[in-house]
Amino acid sequence: MTKSSSKSALHQSKSTPALPHVNADSIQKIKASRKRQFSDEELKDLLISGNKTALGRGITLVESNQSSHQQRAEKLIESCLPYAHKSIRIGITGVPGVGKSTFIEAFGSLLVKLGKKVAVLAVDPSSSVSHGSIMGDKTRMENLVTEENAFIRPSPSGDSLGGVARKTRESIILCEAAGFDVILIETVGVGQSETTVHSMTDFFLLLKLAGAGDELQGIKRGIIEMADAIVINKADGDNLKAAREARLEFNRALHLYPPKASTWQPKVSLCSALDNTGISEVWEMINEYKKLTKKNEFFEKNRHEQNKFWLLQTINEHLKQRFYQDPQIKKALKDQLTAIENNETTPFAAAKLLLNLHNEL
Amino acid sequence: MTKSSSKSALHQSKSTPALPHVNADSIQKIKASRKRQFSDEELKDLLISGNKTALGRGITLVESNQSSHQQRAEKLIESCLPYAHKSIRIGITGVPGVGKSTFIEAFGSLLVKLGKKVAVLAVDPSSSVSHGSIMGDKTRMENLVTEENAFIRPSPSGDSLGGVARKTRESIILCEAAGFDVILIETVGVGQSETTVHSMTDFFLLLKLAGAGDELQGIKRGIIEMADAIVINKADGDNLKAAREARLEFNRALHLYPPKASTWQPKVSLCSALDNTGISEVWEMINEYKKLTKKNEFFEKNRHEQNKFWLLQTINEHLKQRFYQDPQIKKALKDQLTAIENNETTPFAAAKLLLNLHNEL
Repeated sequence: MTKSSSKSALHQSKSTPALPHVNADSIQKIKASRKRQFSDEELKDLLISGNKTALGRGITLVESNQSSHQQRAEKLIESCLPYAHKSIRIGITGVPGVGKSTFIEAFGSLLVKLGKKVAVLAVDPSSSVSHGSIMGDKTRMENLVTEENAFIRPSPSGDSLGGVARKTRESIILCEAAGFDVILIETVGVGQSETTVHSMTDFFLLLKLAGAGDELQGIKRGIIEMADAIVINKADGDNLKAAREARLEFNRALHLYPPKASTWQPKVSLCSALDNTGISEVWEMINEYKKLTKKNEFFEKNRHEQNKFWLLQTINEHLKQRFYQDPQIKKALKDQLTAIENNETTPFAAAKLLLNLHNEL
Repeated sequence: MTKSSSKSALHQSKSTPALPHVNADSIQKIKASRKRQFSDEELKDLLISGNKTALGRGITLVESNQSSHQQRAEKLIESCLPYAHKSIRIGITGVPGVGKSTFIEAFGSLLVKLGKKVAVLAVDPSSSVSHGSIMGDKTRMENLVTEENAFIRPSPSGDSLGGVARKTRESIILCEAAGFDVILIETVGVGQSETTVHSMTDFFLLLKLAGAGDELQGIKRGIIEMADAIVINKADGDNLKAAREARLEFNRALHLYPPKASTWQPKVSLCSALDNTGISEVWEMINEYKKLTKKNEFFEKNRHEQNKFWLLQTINEHLKQRFYQDPQIKKALKDQLTAIENNETTPFAAAKLLLNLHNEL
């Protein structure tokens, strides 16, 4: 199933470099397992035992639009479910240039050193246009990518945000079943992608740069409202003073928002992925958040709410698709819109007519 | 059809006071026409001729939840459509206490003096709980209510926001067919009601008071984004200085927003309904807006977009209702939510199962 086309979302797998400190035996073993075709049963067992090649293949099934793959993916996910849900899921957002990749490189490497298994996924609806993806330039995570206990997967390409969301949510389950206990989900601020990532994570982190004043201008207010932490990146050298001022301004801004259902008071912190400062503080903060929300049961309650949200969301999208993609409805809708423009009918009368037509189909 | 119950949305009709300057003959005529039952044909003809009793009866049909009334309402609206769409529709919002009623009283009276026919409607989803309605206390519009060329109707009660929206949109058409050329639609900032009113008006006006600093705090950002004008009310006496400062601050805030599709630059102005200052300036501003948007064709384009929005909105709501109100789906949905909580299925697999069940029903 592994394709070598440069357009494949899998290009990072094949390019894992054979660095000197990886011993020759494991290279042979990895190469062998890569070439093998697994039965679905083998795939499941390997995945649950933590095999990254099996995990990659599983996610490829999840991302495939072929119906035979989709059926196999559904079975795989079902058998993985009892092993899943034991991670913390962290959403990371920030505009391009803010240093998401270098932050994830530093943060992920720290977590691996602390004995964690770290999976990095991405939600990038813009890749549906360009067939590129964020994290495509994987050299920006050159250390993390070589870690045995790290797994990096770019955004599934060529899809709607709804499709990417489903695929990412299901990939999370596979990563968790493979024993990954920290899932980082990266996104850029394109359209609704932050809301999507926020709806599938436990903790939502907004990366910012200290700019020249006007910190709050141009930032989508909804994103600040979602953030559990604002981390000001590149707080080093000449930037340090501006970063401290930005921290003050964001702290002030955060106090204007109503308290969160989690009872967590969002925090602003500084870090430098370059100097490797402030990184472990982010992890401490997330642990503090986890402790609080496990105790007051928000953690589990939030995951249930998210499940419910995705269930209803999926149903509503399908109901609409089924209606609007019907050729007869398409034609009638066009006619009714013309009739409305000509003041021959109202939107409500037209809706009634279309719904009746749909019932008769 | 006119009920005398104090809970009726019609209580303002029966309480139109017989003031000294109304001549006895017209009182007799009005009383007679009130008692009469009209045929549907008569109702239509009277309504189109501008008879306010017929208009009130028509709106009562539109607001009724009885299916026989709904059928008659649909026919009435259809026959009114060719006479409609010739007004300017102005949305007016502001928190309770900002002086909406006194502003509308002053603004509406000015328009009547200028030879306009003014209809005042309201969208108040909170009335669905209390069965009350804004403008219930009609003594606050005691002059406007006696004007021959003014028509005041409180919010339809006991309904969802979606229901209120449809009823208000259809009432607008009846008012327009009856020759009302300025339609004022009042709302309070409850939930989505501003967005609803914004989606059915040409011009959206936000009424504000000058407070003690912090003008922008606590105000829903989305509302400022929708506003074509921010009018600072009660800019009189001791308030005048604070009002001028608030104008500065709002002007600054408005410049942070991206330009509007209408190309209109939203304005901030001061007024005092008490001193009757700044009221005619609001009307001049709306005329300026109308001139601009008629010329660049945004006016018509916006109305078409609004029609399309309401068409799709109505369809989507019905599709969801039809699905979720099915007793078998209700039960299966509950079971699936439990299965998700027990990690036995995913939201996406559950959605698929429910959609398949729906197809078989």
